[in-house]
Amino acid sequence: MTLIDGLQYANWSEKVFRQMRAGGVDAVHATITYHETFRETVLNIEAWNRWFEQFPDLIFQGRTAADVDLARETGRTAIFFGSQNPSCIEDDIGLVEVLHTLGLRFMQLTYNNQSLLASGCYEAEDTGLTRMGKAVVAEMNRVGLVVDMSHSGERSTLAAIDHSTRPIAITHANPASWHPALRNKSDTVLRALAESGGMLGFSIYPHHLKGGSACTLAEFCQMIARTAELMGVGRIGIGTDLCQDQPDSVVAWMRNGRWTKDTDFGEGSAAAPGFPPMPDWFQDNRHFGAIAAGLADVGFDTGEVAQIMGGNWRAFFEASFGRKAT
Amino acid sequence: MTLIDGLQYANWSEKVFRQMRAGGVDAVHATITYHETFRETVLNIEAWNRWFEQFPDLIFQGRTAADVDLARETGRTAIFFGSQNPSCIEDDIGLVEVLHTLGLRFMQLTYNNQSLLASGCYEAEDTGLTRMGKAVVAEMNRVGLVVDMSHSGERSTLAAIDHSTRPIAITHANPASWHPALRNKSDTVLRALAESGGMLGFSIYPHHLKGGSACTLAEFCQMIARTAELMGVGRIGIGTDLCQDQPDSVVAWMRNGRWTKDTDFGEGSAAAPGFPPMPDWFQDNRHFGAIAAGLADVGFDTGEVAQIMGGNWRAFFEASFGRKAT
Repeated sequence: MTLIDGLQYANWSEKVFRQMRAGGVDAVHATITYHETFRETVLNIEAWNRWFEQFPDLIFQGRTAADVDLARETGRTAIFFGSQNPSCIEDDIGLVEVLHTLGLRFMQLTYNNQSLLASGCYEAEDTGLTRMGKAVVAEMNRVGLVVDMSHSGERSTLAAIDHSTRPIAITHANPASWHPALRNKSDTVLRALAESGGMLGFSIYPHHLKGGSACTLAEFCQMIARTAELMGVGRIGIGTDLCQDQPDSVVAWMRNGRWTKDTDFGEGSAAAPGFPPMPDWFQDNRHFGAIAAGLADVGFDTGEVAQIMGGNWRAFFEASFGRKAT
Repeated sequence: MTLIDGLQYANWSEKVFRQMRAGGVDAVHATITYHETFRETVLNIEAWNRWFEQFPDLIFQGRTAADVDLARETGRTAIFFGSQNPSCIEDDIGLVEVLHTLGLRFMQLTYNNQSLLASGCYEAEDTGLTRMGKAVVAEMNRVGLVVDMSHSGERSTLAAIDHSTRPIAITHANPASWHPALRNKSDTVLRALAESGGMLGFSIYPHHLKGGSACTLAEFCQMIARTAELMGVGRIGIGTDLCQDQPDSVVAWMRNGRWTKDTDFGEGSAAAPGFPPMPDWFQDNRHFGAIAAGLADVGFDTGEVAQIMGGNWRAFFEASFGRKAT
């Protein structure tokens, strides 16, 4: 069974990489940047290059779907780069291709705020795609950089699905019909995503879970079963949003970047500003087996479990990361 | 016969690319940056990406020696990126790998001045490799970025040959024993370069030629024949230094960058500050055939002509552009 996680932002370390191996994780979409400029993003890539050089027996940089297979064959984890905000392309569409050459494979058009490209899910007004947003989506389509709308507003997300000539992704979110968080997605969005051939990765970040950190594995898997009925079993995967070992200063950076002098608490609150504790059944990369078992328990057959745990992402990577056929 | 030019810095245009095709040029090492910062260099790469997108039937980006063969097979010219100064890596060794990933295949440790890495041929004092210079050469060796000492001082060049664990290049220069320009190289350097498996590309930039623009093809080819006796016929190629269609403001940028408020005339003078006219026998990319014929006229056999016109560079690319075997 191919095992792919559709989003993580851990405090990367040898420990985390060894846990990926212990958990049999073949590939991870790893966030490498939020509000960083292009140059700052390149510094983050340099840090990854050092990890790749230091731990060649554990990890390597993934660029194509075939690298998922190479990871399986060589007992390593392929790391695919992604950005959770378009700050890394600044105001320069030429950086889309440059960052793709450097290995970027996913880019969110927004984090929680308005960006140059579209509107985040925390804005009062949702513009849909801006002029630059439409141009950048076309360029992302051309080079093979996946549009990720995990943190975007409803109108912007529907506009991206409509405007993009290639399927897009929501790498880490759950249905709002199950848990009505701002970051979770309406059935309208999920239906449009599925009809366009896109992918949803189910998040285990507690703010996206009904019951938060206390959500049970059975509840999580029952939600997946209901979503499979809505979207089809071929359009769903896992996107844990695992932020393992991160200090709370990191979630403050995610939420505030350099855009405000006040403190935005995002999905948290002044009383609980930090990272919430993960559910006991998913603490780190060694625990994907529990999810696979939970999916079987709610009635998915072996083939369907394999699709959800990685097969669907593998097929999506195959269709998405190369140049658009002209 | 494989035809490779070891250095050009033309004012790139469809006209120049069509002349490459008309001249049967399979590959060109193209300078993409001099004194530009990393971010400015990336802007230059973006400009190249636009040309690759606009003229896919004429050119494409070369990354490996196999791309030279692909160019021949598909009737196009492979463009390999190079930098004539290490400004593009700023003070950050991590940018060596990042720029290699973006396609950089040659980098001069200096232009004419002292750099963070070594000394240029116009400095009064030659430090040899600096502390950072030694570290960067090791990193260039690791990732497969060729050390180019075309504009460096004698001591720095000998130190680079000695310190580098992979053969280096002097992509565009001639023997000083033939024409004693500051930019031309001593027999000591040329002998050390050849003994270490490095490559010399013969320059047709008039300031590097005995007699300047009036130098004849026969004189140029006789100089090559004498250098082949010194270095061996396997260690030499062409590096025209063709700066076709460039306005004189560009040679002023090459020489002055942002390092002085005065005007440095480099190999020119206040009376002749601009680009000198190229010899009548080599005006543009359509004229490599004349050089091949000239080499035959001074006694090189067919196989040797093929080596000098591109075969030697092809073999050097093969040995140089990949990761160092560990």
